[in-house]
Amino acid sequence: VDVKPILFNRGIPAAESFGIDNVLRAARDVLGEHGNVLMQYGPSTGFVPLREWLAAWQGVTADQVLLGNGSLQLLDFLCLALLEPGDLVFTEAPTYDRTLTLLRRRGARVVGIPLAADGPELDRLEDEIAKARPKLFYTIPDFQNPAGATCSAPKRRRIAELAEQHDFLIVEDAPYRQLRYRGTEERSLYSIAPGRTIQMSSFSKLIGPGARVGFLIGPVDLLKKIAKLAEDTYICPNNLAHGVAYEWCRRGLLPLQIERLKSLYAPRLDACIGALARHMPEAEATRPEGGFFVSVTLPEGTSTTAVREKARARELQLADGTAFFPNGGGDRFLRLPFCALTPAEIEEGIGRLGETVRELRGAVALA
Amino acid sequence: VDVKPILFNRGIPAAESFGIDNVLRAARDVLGEHGNVLMQYGPSTGFVPLREWLAAWQGVTADQVLLGNGSLQLLDFLCLALLEPGDLVFTEAPTYDRTLTLLRRRGARVVGIPLAADGPELDRLEDEIAKARPKLFYTIPDFQNPAGATCSAPKRRRIAELAEQHDFLIVEDAPYRQLRYRGTEERSLYSIAPGRTIQMSSFSKLIGPGARVGFLIGPVDLLKKIAKLAEDTYICPNNLAHGVAYEWCRRGLLPLQIERLKSLYAPRLDACIGALARHMPEAEATRPEGGFFVSVTLPEGTSTTAVREKARARELQLADGTAFFPNGGGDRFLRLPFCALTPAEIEEGIGRLGETVRELRGAVALA
Repeated sequence: VDVKPILFNRGIPAAESFGIDNVLRAARDVLGEHGNVLMQYGPSTGFVPLREWLAAWQGVTADQVLLGNGSLQLLDFLCLALLEPGDLVFTEAPTYDRTLTLLRRRGARVVGIPLAADGPELDRLEDEIAKARPKLFYTIPDFQNPAGATCSAPKRRRIAELAEQHDFLIVEDAPYRQLRYRGTEERSLYSIAPGRTIQMSSFSKLIGPGARVGFLIGPVDLLKKIAKLAEDTYICPNNLAHGVAYEWCRRGLLPLQIERLKSLYAPRLDACIGALARHMPEAEATRPEGGFFVSVTLPEGTSTTAVREKARARELQLADGTAFFPNGGGDRFLRLPFCALTPAEIEEGIGRLGETVRELRGAVALA
Repeated sequence: VDVKPILFNRGIPAAESFGIDNVLRAARDVLGEHGNVLMQYGPSTGFVPLREWLAAWQGVTADQVLLGNGSLQLLDFLCLALLEPGDLVFTEAPTYDRTLTLLRRRGARVVGIPLAADGPELDRLEDEIAKARPKLFYTIPDFQNPAGATCSAPKRRRIAELAEQHDFLIVEDAPYRQLRYRGTEERSLYSIAPGRTIQMSSFSKLIGPGARVGFLIGPVDLLKKIAKLAEDTYICPNNLAHGVAYEWCRRGLLPLQIERLKSLYAPRLDACIGALARHMPEAEATRPEGGFFVSVTLPEGTSTTAVREKARARELQLADGTAFFPNGGGDRFLRLPFCALTPAEIEEGIGRLGETVRELRGAVALA
């Protein structure tokens, strides 16, 4: 039988969202207007018109914005600027696995704060702060990767207060923030505590990852430090691609694109939540109002590792759930990125997942 | 008086070399053909067709090529892959200042091997090897930055032998190699010792720095290690800009562009050498056959620092000569990047330089 593989393992946008015609027109116009600037070395802080456009969009000044080749690398520079080996960093548990890789490469000690459906568990956060003050708290408050959780307004205010009281920096990773399919937006941590927060974001989930446009919004002095590290590392970010992104934004496409993405992705989120209820009623699933991820806690006695293994025979690719947990655990955790799959593929994929889990539980029951 | 500033301090290409129309056509065609791939995440090793094109151009296999956002950052990954703090690295003295910054950031001990007009002084290299074996020898054998020196064939062979005998890796930085305005090409170190050499290069001096296309050619296992570090750092390099560079190459523009660059830059090199002979006969200047740089050793009793300072009053910008020397020295060393200046600007700039030097020497003579 010819079974179509379903890739439920990577948090990537749908190819049909890119709108290549618009990218093409933006490339043509920006090369006509700024070609010689875009092909030359530029400032380490990024292509000036894009920096200014982002600042106006976000309601900050241009010197509060720093551009880079995707936001992940800017996080690496931030770590290089602020952390010594052995320094303490808090993240949520689970959290974005690539952040853990970078923190560990820098030699940080990472403590994960358990994440509930409405954000980090604050009593656990306060307990850990009482034990030792972190230098950074890395958090993804909107439609968290990998859990799909969104931090509530009271929790955001409290996190900002704690950062102030205990003198740590909040690193707010916000790439999914614009992609709210229902419900109401919460204030960003940056807007609550601008002097204590550095916000990371990118156009990867809005225009497309291939342009590698990431940016930081934060305190000017810290951005200057990071810009120097960036210059030492790559002289300047990608002027040519950033110029295309700038022209795309200047043409007013961003609000339209965000609406397009919502129309494309909201039914996929619904398909995911619906299929989980039908095919895996015994699993505990998050119910996000936006973003890229639903997550599932498998029934007791089932491990993600075993499910991943077995699912491969059904041509279903899943990510390693334990990789998202900084201090172990996550044996029953499963991240389901739904944006790059059609509703039919989601239905089929979660059907296969349900069969896999039932098969494994049957084997356990028989043993 | 309104004196036009002359920037004799940065090794950047001439804006009139970029040929924006060709870039524009390449962008249009490649987005039409590969748009959805270019806007998505790609492999950490870079956009596959460009990797394959570069491999064919350089006569290697695709897995011997690794793409990145400019070559400097690939050097940083190489250091991260191979060096521990305290490890010994040799460079030429003088050498590219940004390489020194990265080596120091990684905690390497750097020893500079004095550079003659025909390459590194080999007896000094052998003396240093006898003292302690380096892990890497970083060298720019063609039209060296900052000196303008080119390594002779016998010296290249001997460096390859020494790397073999004493088990170190040669890092051959070759961004200017294609830009030979006269004379005959020497074999690359990579071609002499492919198992012991990693070659760095880029399109910054051929197509334009703003596309940030750098690449490594080297041993497959080492490139795999570097690709993993690259993935951990930025997921993938800039697909969009690299796609444009690919299409530009696919259209056969590279050989034409190299000829265009030679026609543009050769008269600038001649203007530089000629002006130095006229305005500064007492200074010792290199006579490169290609590349971006002529360098000058100022007459005894004159320091670059003093000349730089004084030259500013004449609206002449110069780079800090001492920054190119890993272990001190270079007080009379001056790098003159000539490519982004017209012959008239070069004549005027070196005229101002000569006046500055004479003014300072007059002051010294009077003191």
